[in-house]
Amino acid sequence: MNPHAYVHGYSPRENRRLSEQSEILKQILHGDTHFEPASLVLEAGCGTGAQSAILSPMFPETVFMGIDISLASLAEARSRGLHRHHFSRTDINCLPFPPETFDHVLVCFVLEHLTDPEKALYELKRVLKPRGLITVIEGDHGSCFWHPETRASRTVWQSLITVQSGLGHDPDIGRRLHPLLSRAGFHVQMTRPCWLYADASCPDLLDGMVNKIIVPMVKTARESAIQQGLAGEAEWAEGIADLEKSGNPPGGTFFYTWFKSIGVKQD
Amino acid sequence: MNPHAYVHGYSPRENRRLSEQSEILKQILHGDTHFEPASLVLEAGCGTGAQSAILSPMFPETVFMGIDISLASLAEARSRGLHRHHFSRTDINCLPFPPETFDHVLVCFVLEHLTDPEKALYELKRVLKPRGLITVIEGDHGSCFWHPETRASRTVWQSLITVQSGLGHDPDIGRRLHPLLSRAGFHVQMTRPCWLYADASCPDLLDGMVNKIIVPMVKTARESAIQQGLAGEAEWAEGIADLEKSGNPPGGTFFYTWFKSIGVKQD
Repeated sequence: MNPHAYVHGYSPRENRRLSEQSEILKQILHGDTHFEPASLVLEAGCGTGAQSAILSPMFPETVFMGIDISLASLAEARSRGLHRHHFSRTDINCLPFPPETFDHVLVCFVLEHLTDPEKALYELKRVLKPRGLITVIEGDHGSCFWHPETRASRTVWQSLITVQSGLGHDPDIGRRLHPLLSRAGFHVQMTRPCWLYADASCPDLLDGMVNKIIVPMVKTARESAIQQGLAGEAEWAEGIADLEKSGNPPGGTFFYTWFKSIGVKQD
Repeated sequence: MNPHAYVHGYSPRENRRLSEQSEILKQILHGDTHFEPASLVLEAGCGTGAQSAILSPMFPETVFMGIDISLASLAEARSRGLHRHHFSRTDINCLPFPPETFDHVLVCFVLEHLTDPEKALYELKRVLKPRGLITVIEGDHGSCFWHPETRASRTVWQSLITVQSGLGHDPDIGRRLHPLLSRAGFHVQMTRPCWLYADASCPDLLDGMVNKIIVPMVKTARESAIQQGLAGEAEWAEGIADLEKSGNPPGGTFFYTWFKSIGVKQD
């Protein structure tokens, strides 16, 4: 198995999804994100820089080091022209930084794609200064529901979960951030759900979440899902169409929650 | 099928669960509940008065009319000695009140137990004054997840959902409150998730939610679940034990969300 497998792949459509997603979710995920001015932040698994682009104007005196395993994603991140953001191709499990380098580590949508998230947390802790902070934001696909929820739409959603689990990754990792950080030796200051609920009262958010984030994300797993016999082609098409319906007022509703955890490196 | 079937039954243990639940959830569910002083509120499906007991001291000038189909539950509600609370045995689909009687209607954990919730909403609207408000709070069992989540614990939880659905009721009704109220002719002012997340940082809440609310609730469906072949006896016992583990620190976590919707009776 490819140790760097990424369930969503690296297509231009997926890159666009990552940017649209981060704009839609800015307030939900980063409303309480905080970095000290003049601090040095490691953004581990920065991907195409979708979060970097959000955080850069929020923290105009902070310096960021973004690392990722994908050269193509890093090229996209660099092309954003973000000052104070440095990017480097690096394996999260084996960082080329001396111990106690960073004031803060940010991990966003990364642990869910690793075979051993606890190991990565130990390595991130190593490069964090004493009493330094780690902010982790991860989704939980098991938290997701919508209306109307049909058998076919549930099948395509479950297919994504099964494909990602089959890579040895945990798409439900959000719910276990607290015990995971604790076991890795952090003192957990806070863990909270960052939830999104949308209905006909906020049609743009409903459409954005379902049709710009969720449906494109599910589609990244189409080939694998059909290949693995998790859904037939017709069933897949029906499930996607049904999922799209939940993004339409007046009847559609959608719920998903990410989790955000802040831990302190203990002495 | 008994038109008044109630998945959780009417045992003393269940009555205790309803009271413990309402104390634990007071802030989550009723933090923003509001009734005008000197208003007349219909609490439709008041059961044993668990919500009434919470709301009574919060609104010392409000008069409540509690109705329910169960005489035994109403006896329990009356035994609480709540002043300004009147109780009457009444079918929610056929209310003995003149049109435009009440200033506000409260419905809490009721629509999920009805075969035709929309019909009940029409009847409640009839007895509501013009521009009167309806506050609806309902759970959504499809929103629930925990850690560690084993196959057996998922099976017992799913059994409860299947047994309740088999009665023709909708245990996932929370997610469709907004479209349901809209279709019944209310102008929906607000719909929000009322979520509970608990982990080792709040061990009492974690224990209370899992061991005083969820596990006893799941247990009310044990006989039906086994009878319907949804789980074997050994599997059931294993699932309950696993579910209980999610209520224990340091590793356990739990998430559930109810939904709360406020609608206005349109002219």
